[in-house]
Amino acid sequence: MGNPLLPREKSPFLIQALEEADREKPEDYKRYFDRLFPLFRSITGDGARKTHDILSEIMPLQRIETPSGSQVFDWTVPKEWVVREAYVVTPKGERILDIRDSNLHLVNYSQPFRGKVSREELDKHLHSLPELPAAVPYVISYYAPRWGFCLTQNMRDRLEDGEYEVVIDTEHIDGSMTISETVLPGEETKEVLITAYTCHPSMANHELSGPLVTAFVHRRLASLPKRRLTYRFVYAPETIGSITYLSLRGEHLLKNLAAGYVCNSLGMPTHFTCKKTRRENSLSDRAALHALPFFGDKELQVREFFPSHGSDERQYNSPGFNLPVGVLARTIYGEYPEYHTSLDNPDFISFEALAESADAIFAVCSVLDKNAVYERTMPYCEPFMTKYGLYPTLSGRRKIEDYSKGMMWLLNYADGEHDLLSIAERSGFDFWMLDDIARVCLDAGIIRLKK
Amino acid sequence: MGNPLLPREKSPFLIQALEEADREKPEDYKRYFDRLFPLFRSITGDGARKTHDILSEIMPLQRIETPSGSQVFDWTVPKEWVVREAYVVTPKGERILDIRDSNLHLVNYSQPFRGKVSREELDKHLHSLPELPAAVPYVISYYAPRWGFCLTQNMRDRLEDGEYEVVIDTEHIDGSMTISETVLPGEETKEVLITAYTCHPSMANHELSGPLVTAFVHRRLASLPKRRLTYRFVYAPETIGSITYLSLRGEHLLKNLAAGYVCNSLGMPTHFTCKKTRRENSLSDRAALHALPFFGDKELQVREFFPSHGSDERQYNSPGFNLPVGVLARTIYGEYPEYHTSLDNPDFISFEALAESADAIFAVCSVLDKNAVYERTMPYCEPFMTKYGLYPTLSGRRKIEDYSKGMMWLLNYADGEHDLLSIAERSGFDFWMLDDIARVCLDAGIIRLKK
Amino acid sequence: MGNPLLPREKSPFLIQALEEADREKPEDYKRYFDRLFPLFRSITGDGARKTHDILSEIMPLQRIETPSGSQVFDWTVPKEWVVREAYVVTPKGERILDIRDSNLHLVNYSQPFRGKVSREELDKHLHSLPELPAAVPYVISYYAPRWGFCLTQNMRDRLEDGEYEVVIDTEHIDGSMTISETVLPGEETKEVLITAYTCHPSMANHELSGPLVTAFVHRRLASLPKRRLTYRFVYAPETIGSITYLSLRGEHLLKNLAAGYVCNSLGMPTHFTCKKTRRENSLSDRAALHALPFFGDKELQVREFFPSHGSDERQYNSPGFNLPVGVLARTIYGEYPEYHTSLDNPDFISFEALAESADAIFAVCSVLDKNAVYERTMPYCEPFMTKYGLYPTLSGRRKIEDYSKGMMWLLNYADGEHDLLSIAERSGFDFWMLDDIARVCLDAGIIRLKK
Repeated sequence: MGNPLLPREKSPFLIQALEEADREKPEDYKRYFDRLFPLFRSITGDGARKTHDILSEIMPLQRIETPSGSQVFDWTVPKEWVVREAYVVTPKGERILDIRDSNLHLVNYSQPFRGKVSREELDKHLHSLPELPAAVPYVISYYAPRWGFCLTQNMRDRLEDGEYEVVIDTEHIDGSMTISETVLPGEETKEVLITAYTCHPSMANHELSGPLVTAFVHRRLASLPKRRLTYRFVYAPETIGSITYLSLRGEHLLKNLAAGYVCNSLGMPTHFTCKKTRRENSLSDRAALHALPFFGDKELQVREFFPSHGSDERQYNSPGFNLPVGVLARTIYGEYPEYHTSLDNPDFISFEALAESADAIFAVCSVLDKNAVYERTMPYCEPFMTKYGLYPTLSGRRKIEDYSKGMMWLLNYADGEHDLLSIAERSGFDFWMLDDIARVCLDAGIIRLKK
Repeated sequence: MGNPLLPREKSPFLIQALEEADREKPEDYKRYFDRLFPLFRSITGDGARKTHDILSEIMPLQRIETPSGSQVFDWTVPKEWVVREAYVVTPKGERILDIRDSNLHLVNYSQPFRGKVSREELDKHLHSLPELPAAVPYVISYYAPRWGFCLTQNMRDRLEDGEYEVVIDTEHIDGSMTISETVLPGEETKEVLITAYTCHPSMANHELSGPLVTAFVHRRLASLPKRRLTYRFVYAPETIGSITYLSLRGEHLLKNLAAGYVCNSLGMPTHFTCKKTRRENSLSDRAALHALPFFGDKELQVREFFPSHGSDERQYNSPGFNLPVGVLARTIYGEYPEYHTSLDNPDFISFEALAESADAIFAVCSVLDKNAVYERTMPYCEPFMTKYGLYPTLSGRRKIEDYSKGMMWLLNYADGEHDLLSIAERSGFDFWMLDDIARVCLDAGIIRLKK
Repeated sequence: MGNPLLPREKSPFLIQALEEADREKPEDYKRYFDRLFPLFRSITGDGARKTHDILSEIMPLQRIETPSGSQVFDWTVPKEWVVREAYVVTPKGERILDIRDSNLHLVNYSQPFRGKVSREELDKHLHSLPELPAAVPYVISYYAPRWGFCLTQNMRDRLEDGEYEVVIDTEHIDGSMTISETVLPGEETKEVLITAYTCHPSMANHELSGPLVTAFVHRRLASLPKRRLTYRFVYAPETIGSITYLSLRGEHLLKNLAAGYVCNSLGMPTHFTCKKTRRENSLSDRAALHALPFFGDKELQVREFFPSHGSDERQYNSPGFNLPVGVLARTIYGEYPEYHTSLDNPDFISFEALAESADAIFAVCSVLDKNAVYERTMPYCEPFMTKYGLYPTLSGRRKIEDYSKGMMWLLNYADGEHDLLSIAERSGFDFWMLDDIARVCLDAGIIRLKK
């Protein structure tokens, strides 16, 4: 059947599945994006809260606030970060590196500082990228007290000698860390987890594409007349957020999770990437590998699970949980030079790409939702299809239609063991066509859902 | 070891195994073929009975008659079809499409009809093949009442306007459907099923090659001094026949079947094809894949099991039975243009090819029959071969013979778990040589048959 | 990750592991080699005893003497062979084929004979190699009474007609067969078996390289401050020796053996070869396949287990034992023309190659010894690495070091199921670096050894 990861054309059945839901338009993204982008997010603080408030306009979200200092497994929830202002005044009196210009200028979670420093002293607190001289890097220091600024290498090279006035009016207060979740119920309690993080300041692809696309995926799923599975959406800061969430919902997920995905880097009009789960050929992996080749501009990139780096999947896939949570992205983190810099700006992404990403993730959910296991009501030999009007009565050399062939595949593998996805994989027939066939056969009473 | 499906040369051990049985000659096929070909077979009726009568001259057959209207699983045994005459008289008074010329002219299982119809009206009941204008297609309508004729596109194009007289003197009576079987006993109750269908009118490769070749395979097996396994041969109409047979013998087969094959399309002097069983690497599949590369003119074609179309294997491999029954053929159904037309005539096949097909199926049976599991009588270390005269006593740089090497393979894997076929697959040594070695080692008392 | 069998560069961690032990020098080999090479070894007799005496200077060895005539499984321990002198006197009175010139001249285990024979009669007792006319072949006749001489084809061609005097003063006496063993204890009772045979007369690569290299591997392992596993070294005649040893220690090995290797043909400065065990992907195989690509001049050669020929591995891997004992060699037996001839002499091997072979086998043992299974003390999510000083606190676009990445791999797969080797295989990170990381993590208390 050739390389199953190469781009594939959508069948009319898949197109129908996509159109069954209320699909947002690229301009809907723009509307929310423009309000979300400028917010000064960090792992704690009001930036994240405002972000969740805006997402709440698209989907219902319940807030979970965890007090600073709470123990979560081996970790402690950090203090809440308050930023009021931060800038530097040059010897000539010019105000530079002002966070009102770009919130990337201040090292994220920076300590407060106020004072006059020499050019040399200031330089110890500066971060730039010689290899990308026009980019302001994104730098964080959550777990060691530091202050600092980020700037382009070009600007840094031009800084003159003399005395600089540094103003960093920040505070680390006893507050709480913000997580939001919502559960979209289905006919079964088995759950699909969709999660994105909301702790990065003004960067478009990584990370804002993640929360925005998934919020619209929620809206699509919510618009469906019915869902077989239950869907859980979670927004939290990276790492400490998922660790805290697992301390609250880990046991529940161990019991109920069917599949899950960390969603990010969804704004480039490129190929898709799936980082597989630690369980390797989990349902999460199989659904993503089946649905994603219908989207993106070239071959689906598949990465075997690696814990060396990455995002929240490392926590979900830690040995004590080993939850089947993969990553869905387009060009994935670290594989494009603009990653974690000011170059990852609104011009870098495309709103059409965001909408296509929502299509793709919705299609993955569609596979999961339709991926039932069926069994024949009477499993011996083939049913007498003519009786049900399901087979042509004149035969000989007639070419059998794909729909009829798919039906025979379904009826043979409706054995209470093979799920619909495995029948699609094995037969090469379109998953959504097989789902359509399954509904026809259910109506005819010749198969039933395996309980 | 290279591609194991490419043509392989027969070893002297295989040649000896083939010669151990009474082999028919190509002319033996001709003798029976000429009497069987003209019979007007259908799923029910005297055509099939006469066919079985003639096969009974080669092998013993017990008749099973199932009354019309009997319920078999989801199906009903159809009425018996009686054909007396059928033809059309042209406006000029010429008698055409007479079944005395070719029984393909009448739609198989056609309703009776007698009357005068216009050229236009007649045309609604005609079947021809624009892409093969000189061929009469084979058309059937078992499960919807129709009448009709089949003719070449060339003839159809020449039919003039005017009134045609149609005579179809057929009848659907309460009678019975004919199945025949025979069981050739062996030392063990484990069975090999060999089946072919007998419901197609005058077509040579598909299907007449099937019943003829298998009948001679029966005669060969019956001529052997002993058989380890039991062999069951079944002849029945396609689909409804195997369904009915499974309703009678399904439970028995579930308990006793070791391997099985639907045999057809065995008359072309081409490559062989094995359509595998639903269990995928069943013993049926392994034996066929091992034996068939010694026969045919090029690479063995292997098809993974597909239920979308095909023949009786769909019933045997239905989820409730899941019996390891594959298909043995040369160029398989649907893969040659003459399939299901009048072009599949005696000139299309070769009697030498039929004889080679019998060799091939006999060789598959030979693998099954010799494929025992052995165990060492004393499994610790190698036996002291010199004591049994089974190893050269002078050593150093001497090249060890394949026979000695094969013996060491057999003695190492005679562990009560590996069957002889797996030892051949693993070692690359000839299966029939290993069987010869096994008998030598049995005689020496250093291995025994695993019970 | 490319072909894992191609030569790989040693990491500093592997180099450190090699240097941790007392490594002998190439000249140390020469010293022992020159004393061992001339000894007239056979399956029984004083040649083997003197060989074991000299090996005892490198390592402690306990002697096991098994009386002639003892039954061991299907075999009988042969009589002890005593050789006093053997030569031939030509018609011209010249003494040729004297074992004082080369002990290969006499057929090993030859019967005594004394008499005058014609050129024709003598020729029936001569062995030479037409394809290697300058080589004296090594010929044995343990299990059939014969006398004979081996010589070069060149010399044989020059033998003149006339009467020859043959003197073979040998005797087969009731004595015993010599095996030596030693056990180097470790923290666990699980054992690694290292064995070589000591029954071949003056040939350098096959077999003297085997006992010599393994003796020095013993000295290296003995010099380590601690060992997790227990190491068993065994020296015995080929075949009958390992069969006898298995009759004594087979049950113990079945309970305790973790991995084992027959070591031979280790003197050529070529690639390494691993003949795998019958269990296929046993720990023996995995450790050898991982460690050996760091040694030798080209791609590691891997042979699936074959029982058709070879050495003591056939006894260890016999069906009743099925012990995971593979073969470690460089160019393996039979794959070089000098094999089993007088051309396999001291000039044919290199003492540097012997030392590298000891490095390689020691590295295989190092993998086995360090290949523990770890589990996280608190397996939920990642540990808060900053708390243990194990992770950089400033992040963003910083390239993560391999050591840190390796640590995250270890912490994720420290699940009580994956051994360290499987983590190295899966991650592609250096095994010995991961071992170093494991010790750091053990010290930090975030993992523990799985009991």
